[in-house]
Parts: sequence; C-alpha cells; structure tokens
Amino acid sequence: MKINQYTGIDHVDKEAKRDYIDRHSPFIYCDDTMEKGKKSFVKVVVGKEYSHPDDFDHYIHKVSLYDGERLLGDAIIPAGTLGNQSEQLEVTFSVVPKRKMKLQALAYCTKHGVWRSEEKVVDVK
Amino acid sequence: MKINQYTGIDHVDKEAKRDYIDRHSPFIYCDDTMEKGKKSFVKVVVGKEYSHPDDFDHYIHKVSLYDGERLLGDAIIPAGTLGNQSEQLEVTFSVVPKRKMKLQALAYCTKHGVWRSEEKVVDVK
Amino acid sequence: MKINQYTGIDHVDKEAKRDYIDRHSPFIYCDDTMEKGKKSFVKVVVGKEYSHPDDFDHYIHKVSLYDGERLLGDAIIPAGTLGNQSEQLEVTFSVVPKRKMKLQALAYCTKHGVWRSEEKVVDVK
Amino acid sequence: MKINQYTGIDHVDKEAKRDYIDRHSPFIYCDDTMEKGKKSFVKVVVGKEYSHPDDFDHYIHKVSLYDGERLLGDAIIPAGTLGNQSEQLEVTFSVVPKRKMKLQALAYCTKHGVWRSEEKVVDVK
Repeated sequence: MKINQYTGIDHVDKEAKRDYIDRHSPFIYCDDTMEKGKKSFVKVVVGKEYSHPDDFDHYIHKVSLYDGERLLGDAIIPAGTLGNQSEQLEVTFSVVPKRKMKLQALAYCTKHGVWRSEEKVVDVK
Repeated sequence: MKINQYTGIDHVDKEAKRDYIDRHSPFIYCDDTMEKGKKSFVKVVVGKEYSHPDDFDHYIHKVSLYDGERLLGDAIIPAGTLGNQSEQLEVTFSVVPKRKMKLQALAYCTKHGVWRSEEKVVDVK
Repeated sequence: MKINQYTGIDHVDKEAKRDYIDRHSPFIYCDDTMEKGKKSFVKVVVGKEYSHPDDFDHYIHKVSLYDGERLLGDAIIPAGTLGNQSEQLEVTFSVVPKRKMKLQALAYCTKHGVWRSEEKVVDVK
Repeated sequence: MKINQYTGIDHVDKEAKRDYIDRHSPFIYCDDTMEKGKKSFVKVVVGKEYSHPDDFDHYIHKVSLYDGERLLGDAIIPAGTLGNQSEQLEVTFSVVPKRKMKLQALAYCTKHGVWRSEEKVVDVK
C-alpha cells in the first residue's frame, strides 16, 4: 500500500501525467499565521488546475487532515455529492491551534489510491 | 437509541436547558438557492448561541450531512481539534446540486448522543 | 431525513417488500450476557434472509453501532468490497462492557437511506 | 506526517520499545487462500503481545484495511468502546475477493500517529 506524495507538476512534461497527479492531490489553503486559542479554518481542495471525476466507480472517497502525526479530521464523501461531474472536492475544517502546526492532507481516490499533500506550516502566536 | 430533534429554544425557559439544546444542535448555513450543476457550499456549525466543550471525554465526534435520505458526507473529528476549549465545531462540505435539496445535519456528542438539525430547503435552478 | 426502523417482516405479505426491508436492515449477533471488563464481540450483518447488491451506485456504505445513545463505532465501506455481488455485509466490533448494554445498529444504503435494527439487550455481570 | 511501518520486534532489545511498537501495530488475521466470489473475513487486531490503553486522551481511533491501493474499509471507534482499559482493539471486515489480495492495515493512535501492518498476501482461487 503506497502513498503518492505530491511534489509539484512543473517538472512533468506530459499533459496527461500533469492532470493525473494534480487532480488526485489534496491542496491546503489557510492563513500562514493563526492566533493561539482562536478558531481558524483549514480548507482542503482535491485538485488545483485539474478536476477529478465524481463517477460512482471512480471518485474521491475520503479527505484526511493531519497536524504532524495528529489527526485533525476525516471527511468521508459518497459518490454523487459532486453531482457526478468532474469537480474539485472541498472540505473546510475548523481548528483551534495551540502551537505551530505542520499540516498535511491525504485524499483517497477509489481507483488510484492515497495521495498526500505538501506540508503547510502555520505559525501560531 | 434516540435522535434528539432540534426545534428552536425560544420556548425553553431554563437557561441551562437552552444552553444544553443549542450547543448540541447542528445548524446549516448555505444559500437558499443554488445553481444546478454548480459547486456550492454547505456549512454545518454545532451550536448557535452556545458552545460545546472539546474535552477528551466529552466532545463533538461526528457531523453528518443529508439531502433527504441521501448522505452527502460524514466528518469525524477527534477530541482536541478545537484546542480542548469550548468552541463551535464547523465543517463545510462542497456539493453540486442536481435538484431541490432538503438538507439536514446530524451531530454526535460523546456524552449526549445524536442531534438533528432543522431541515433547510435549497431551491436549485 | 427519515430513519427506517426494522420491526420484523413476518407481517409483510409481498415478497418484494419483505426482501426490500430485510436486505437493508442491520441485525446484531452477540452473546446475551457478557462479562464486565472482558473483551467481547458484536457482529452486525446487513440482511438476514436476503442480500443487498454491492453495485457502485447502490451499496451499503456505512454501519454504525450504538449502546443506547453512545456510539461504539462506525465502519465505512466503499463499493466493491463485497466483490460487486449481492452479499450480506458483516462487521464485527470488539467491545468491553461496563454495564448492561442496549445495542442498536444503523446501516446506510446509498439509494434507500438509513435503517435501524431492533434493540439487543446484553446483560453484563 | 509519518507512517510507522511495523517490521517485527525480534530485533528490538528494550522491553519498553518492544511494547511501544507492538501495541500500536495492526496485525491481519485471515485465511491464506480464499475462494473467488465467496464471502470471507479479515480480522485486524491492534497489538499482538501487548495491549494499548483506551484512555480518553490516548486510544486507537481508527483502523483501515487496504488491498494494495484499494481501501476495503475504515472503522472509527470513539474512546471508551474498550471500557477504558488496556485491550487489543479488533475489527473484522467481510470481503469478497476477485483476485489475489495484498492486504495491509493502518491503525491510528491519538498520541502516536499512524502505524502500518506488514503485508498479508491472500491467494484467491
């Protein structure tokens, strides 16, 4: 069981491969700095420049968010929630940080397995 | 196994009971009208006027979103994600509607069971 | 969002309806009496006399086990785990009881919603 | 976010470290050979010679089972299901194999992160 690690697609020449990597990868969007003890938000979007299908036999089933080794949440989404069309799945979690976070997200595609985002460091003051 | 149904707290006199009902209930926030086939967002917040603890032995563990009988997603959140302080858990799901939706959310508290939101009807054009 | 409550099919005349109710309903199998503080097992099977399809657009996506209002566990299963054939999904959870339990299971079908089992009382000595 | 890979504890001298590794690791128990198209069972147990606590702030929250890159199921278990005592969490999933499987399980501890089992190959005839 392998975990595919996203490392950018700029070095990838073939369009089909750029699409394949990008549409499976989770991307983290949140503030670079958060306030200690204050509710903040972390958005995870699967795909940045490309979109993944939402077919019954091929869809993004799960998104998980970690801070280092600590799980912040899992979202599990049945096929069809994105209307069975090609679209970027988004899930936004609320978090209350206590200290610097090293966020990383996982996305699971029912045909192409687990994909891990780049790490997003959040300073907490 | 009972499901507690939220029906408003205006008729509730006792402050402790108002707090108890409100902080356990999920509330749905989204547009009243969405465009068919267009990605839209549904936010579920647990508590409106009051906040629930995020103690290890007493926290909101799960939020589920339904459209009628159809599950749109589950978010499962370990204790501590809200910094172990009293706070309103929020999860925002992306959805792509095909037709009129009748949204309802469930929240699960590890001490006080399952709570169901009021129904939120979304017209889809 | 409605929860279908299983109450037996003996009173149901039509074969198609008997099948419909039975194959969606979770059934709990475990000892009638458990020992306090000792690991024991609770099996949940969806369907007793009939089997549910495991089609990509129509399958049992989730099984949940409750003791009264307390959640003991959720199992979330993607389509295809039962080989895309008609079969009874089974999940067995380990539990360590402290006191008398009132077990109830929920099953979620992606086309026909949430179904709740009968209550199974377990004496704990 | 790191995934701890179990590789046996025979080479580990220190008792505390043997315990630490063993009690966090998921172990897979199932037949070496299964029949194609026939319902079979895969048991995942967290810990083999040692047991993990089931404290509210330190417990096994999730067990996942994969066949190669394909997710067969997630079980998410709140703290307290094992009676708040040191015990080995077990979850048994039903599967219907179509072809040779390469099973691997993940377990998530709320303090010590994600642990991956050794691979268990199942011949399917």
